[in-house]
Amino acid sequence: MKAFQETARSSTCAARRGRIFTDRGTVETPVFMPVGTQATVKAVSPEELEKCGAQIILGNTYHLYLRPGQRIIQELGGLHTFMGWKKPVLTDSGGFQIYSLATMRKIEEHGVRFRSHIDGSIHSLTPESAIEIQEALGSDIMMCLDVCIPYPATLRETADFTALTTRWAERCLAARKRKELHLFAIIQGGMDPEWRIRSASELLELGFDGYALGGLSVGEPKELLLEMIDTVRPVVPSEYPVYVMGVGTPEDLVECVARGVDMFDCVLPTRNARNGMLFTSSGRIVIKNACFRRDSRPIDAACRCYTCRNFSRAYLRHLYISKEILVHRLTTIHNLYYFLNLLQEMRSAIEADRFEEFKKEFYSRRENKT
Amino acid sequence: MKAFQETARSSTCAARRGRIFTDRGTVETPVFMPVGTQATVKAVSPEELEKCGAQIILGNTYHLYLRPGQRIIQELGGLHTFMGWKKPVLTDSGGFQIYSLATMRKIEEHGVRFRSHIDGSIHSLTPESAIEIQEALGSDIMMCLDVCIPYPATLRETADFTALTTRWAERCLAARKRKELHLFAIIQGGMDPEWRIRSASELLELGFDGYALGGLSVGEPKELLLEMIDTVRPVVPSEYPVYVMGVGTPEDLVECVARGVDMFDCVLPTRNARNGMLFTSSGRIVIKNACFRRDSRPIDAACRCYTCRNFSRAYLRHLYISKEILVHRLTTIHNLYYFLNLLQEMRSAIEADRFEEFKKEFYSRRENKT
Repeated sequence: MKAFQETARSSTCAARRGRIFTDRGTVETPVFMPVGTQATVKAVSPEELEKCGAQIILGNTYHLYLRPGQRIIQELGGLHTFMGWKKPVLTDSGGFQIYSLATMRKIEEHGVRFRSHIDGSIHSLTPESAIEIQEALGSDIMMCLDVCIPYPATLRETADFTALTTRWAERCLAARKRKELHLFAIIQGGMDPEWRIRSASELLELGFDGYALGGLSVGEPKELLLEMIDTVRPVVPSEYPVYVMGVGTPEDLVECVARGVDMFDCVLPTRNARNGMLFTSSGRIVIKNACFRRDSRPIDAACRCYTCRNFSRAYLRHLYISKEILVHRLTTIHNLYYFLNLLQEMRSAIEADRFEEFKKEFYSRRENKT
Repeated sequence: MKAFQETARSSTCAARRGRIFTDRGTVETPVFMPVGTQATVKAVSPEELEKCGAQIILGNTYHLYLRPGQRIIQELGGLHTFMGWKKPVLTDSGGFQIYSLATMRKIEEHGVRFRSHIDGSIHSLTPESAIEIQEALGSDIMMCLDVCIPYPATLRETADFTALTTRWAERCLAARKRKELHLFAIIQGGMDPEWRIRSASELLELGFDGYALGGLSVGEPKELLLEMIDTVRPVVPSEYPVYVMGVGTPEDLVECVARGVDMFDCVLPTRNARNGMLFTSSGRIVIKNACFRRDSRPIDAACRCYTCRNFSRAYLRHLYISKEILVHRLTTIHNLYYFLNLLQEMRSAIEADRFEEFKKEFYSRRENKT
């Protein structure tokens, strides 16, 4: 099955509308995927996710492999059944978590050895086992095992890890048994334009269902993120979906969509929600601030989420200050709704070929503070 | 408005069906009231509470007075609007929390001085201010300020605190301005049958909308709880609802209903849920136990709650072990549903005059472990 179809394109920039086809339904792009690390998007139920507008969520191979283990999830009917989520799931390969979470990472040709961040036990992941795990989970979109390149990196590291990522991608492709599940490759290349282009070209040569840009949002300046996208995006033909991993702020999403990116995931809306940082159409607010003590308004008067339709800033502040866990759910619902609705607005704008106007409005709203 | 009407009575014991009338609707009794200490029943939304079968919830005057303060709640439209709960609310008076939580308690004729458990600041509560706070919150059923008697207590303490509770109740009655809100008195008397009867008789003389038994579940042996109920219950005429505060286990509820008690509140279902202890028709289970690792069954096959309809024990265990906060919500929903459904079963049994059969079944189910 073909994974992707472009359905509309902006006449003034690279922004485009499209559809990803999976056995569990169609995903309208550009799309933001809430992160469900441990078989749950923290603090919200599957029904709430759907009501927030989520079309597809992300699961983490590294976490699910370590706990509860893919065998248990498979026995219980796969990740969707296990967590009660019926729509598509994309799983990352674990490459990034081994880079960012594991307390040891030893990269060899065969695969990567690492120490679990949970109990210090030693594990290894290979391109083949990464696919086996993701097939056991029943992921609709699987990702190849990659090597995340640190920032900054030497040219040697960039070259070696990028080349290894390509060799691993080839092995992932060969290891795939369940052809109905899509497999995406991850373009590495560090912050080096030539290696980025080479990585993309080699992976395109191998032939995947979609292409992701990995190794971004690892501490580099914001300009580099957009520069890498500007470099790589034109290399990938329009028949493939392009996914920028781990991005980003609302502004990042708008800028990336303008450059033709189709898919995103990020912990920002959910993690910030739990820290009381809320996104609104006019900017961010910190709900614990004393100015909200008697504020009877919703987080964002323009928002139609469950939280904004039912609760005041004063109530949310009270829950936050009182350490009541209901607040995590209510703020997560709001932030997810904000991100998912932002993507919905962008999809509509692209369809109506008014993305430039949308962008102008987006930035001008953020200058008018409530 | 008359607060209560008895509608049916068991032919074999003191169990009875009834209705409490409030401006926010009718409450079918016997009833269990989930505890919403800080303007939220921990981990669940108002909609979930309603779906679990909650008819009325409890708020804590002590906590809401300290944070965010009754003035703020009043400005924001009262406790119901503040927390998004449309059905009746009963608020305790703070007497028990000052006894159990405050780091200092100084009882004088005028009122009680105490140190906040939050920041050590010094406050005082009088019978008059307890009513003023509850009227500001807009509580449908207010409780008189009482003095909770420790267990064990000397006869001197029992006598003094019981007499003071009666004098305070009289002042509460005089302080009440909002006649549409019910006011219940709290019967004290420690574990002394004579003082219990005297407390009840004096409070009945003053005339309240309902009567609660306070100062129970303070560490006394279980038999004493039932003995005190057996002593006091017959003293209160059937035209008044009788409320046993802070009780209890499922077994306690069945035994108290059999003795003619109409109302209950307890943190047990919600607190135990957060600790992973779940109530089922055949007894209790501890969800973190390794035996549930691969268990695809719901918590209780006989249960129709949201959690049991959608999630396995293995998934709940995974969330619990992984410290995912969704588990607190899912287990709280189950435990609340269990308690509220138990009361529903008792109401039906009383109506059909088969309470004895219900009791037998209740105990026999608990002997057949799954």
